Amino acid sequence: MDIVLIGSGNVATQLGLILIKSGHRILQVYSRTMVNAEELAYKLSSNAIDSISELDISAEVYIVSVKDDVLKDLLLELPQLNGIICHTAGSVDMDVLDRFEHFGVFYPFQTFTKEKLVDFKQVPVLLEADNDKVYETLLKLAESISDKVSKASSQQRGKLHVAAVFACNFVNHMYRLSEDLLEDSGLSFELLHPLIKETADKVMSISPSLTQTGPASRDDQMIIQKHKYLLKEQEPYSSIYKNLTESILALNKSK
Amino acid sequence: MDIVLIGSGNVATQLGLILIKSGHRILQVYSRTMVNAEELAYKLSSNAIDSISELDISAEVYIVSVKDDVLKDLLLELPQLNGIICHTAGSVDMDVLDRFEHFGVFYPFQTFTKEKLVDFKQVPVLLEADNDKVYETLLKLAESISDKVSKASSQQRGKLHVAAVFACNFVNHMYRLSEDLLEDSGLSFELLHPLIKETADKVMSISPSLTQTGPASRDDQMIIQKHKYLLKEQEPYSSIYKNLTESILALNKSK
Repeated sequence: MDIVLIGSGNVATQLGLILIKSGHRILQVYSRTMVNAEELAYKLSSNAIDSISELDISAEVYIVSVKDDVLKDLLLELPQLNGIICHTAGSVDMDVLDRFEHFGVFYPFQTFTKEKLVDFKQVPVLLEADNDKVYETLLKLAESISDKVSKASSQQRGKLHVAAVFACNFVNHMYRLSEDLLEDSGLSFELLHPLIKETADKVMSISPSLTQTGPASRDDQMIIQKHKYLLKEQEPYSSIYKNLTESILALNKSK
Repeated sequence: MDIVLIGSGNVATQLGLILIKSGHRILQVYSRTMVNAEELAYKLSSNAIDSISELDISAEVYIVSVKDDVLKDLLLELPQLNGIICHTAGSVDMDVLDRFEHFGVFYPFQTFTKEKLVDFKQVPVLLEADNDKVYETLLKLAESISDKVSKASSQQRGKLHVAAVFACNFVNHMYRLSEDLLEDSGLSFELLHPLIKETADKVMSISPSLTQTGPASRDDQMIIQKHKYLLKEQEPYSSIYKNLTESILALNKSK
């Protein structure tokens, strides 16, 4: 298909790369910042633009991947389009697009950074569309890059996004805090790699409700007090340790 | 080396298996419970004992792997030894051993179960020793089973244990909360598998301080408010979302 990418961030980059790898054409890459548009357009053998007035109106699909808080303003600038316009945002309802003729949502459910290539076949893509015809087109596009395509309403996508904040963003923050704690003691974060890998591997086959370990899960107050003392007055470690330990203890008690 | 294992639990089992595989001899396996000593001794072509008086005093290294809360009492029962005595506990200071002549700590940093074999070469082993000569012996022993041997003081080991609570126990709790959130919306936890895997994989090669994504990391207040509204009055999600979001925002501002 002939596609225009609006945005040049992590999601646009990874989507663009897998789309051309799967045989699609990226007609244009738009970014407010020309150097960003050019950087991605170069990777995709595409054309960079930084003005909406230059938008190619012959594309079949326009994929808008910009920060959620600029999405609405950007959409106001866009002309009426013959192709399908879709956004890639987890927490934005589809109806922000309803002044367009054909619209939908194309939500790749993964965490992306520009530098690290992703095995897109394993990335769930969640679709929502204004009507069946749009859905069929988005389905065809999604299935050309992923083996895990499914339908999700705006409401489900919202819940999924919150769940992802816990399972990915907050998890990464835990990694970050543990790295900082180790650095304070002159120890390398690499020491934690095997443990991090094992913890993630485990929940691929066993529910995380059955794999909780550690002092809170066995209500080991001696160790909990020792840890609280170690972290005393060190924020944010201290309050997070307290908050999450209480949450694990409460879940145990409710069992 | 000629080694005596004191204890027959998960750590003793995994250590014993890798030690004989690496060419060492396990002279004896001690457990208070004879059937447990016998079970492990059988696996290690070793001799089971359940009485301290039968302890072979010719071993070069005695590895004590028992539960933290029985360790001190057990140590009181032991005779003076010519060999090195070391424990394998993350949260117990080395000085519990200071009435012995040669002592140290041999701490394999991973979660173990008896049944699941571990790739020990990848397991960090943290050493602490009373003096250089003891350290050299423990180092030789540790390097024969693991590629990731390093030195850690009792204080560092304590910090490492706290860091592991963040990187493993709290991470698993995040997985658990996200599973519960999805179940409420009729979505499968499996949708999160690729995201969980990618998030863990990423920090194997890039510092988590550079891989933070999500609404808090880009200070996307619109989405943050939306998520807070979605989780409103749902505990523990609501307070944890608030706490961790603030922590990520604060880290960004301090950059």
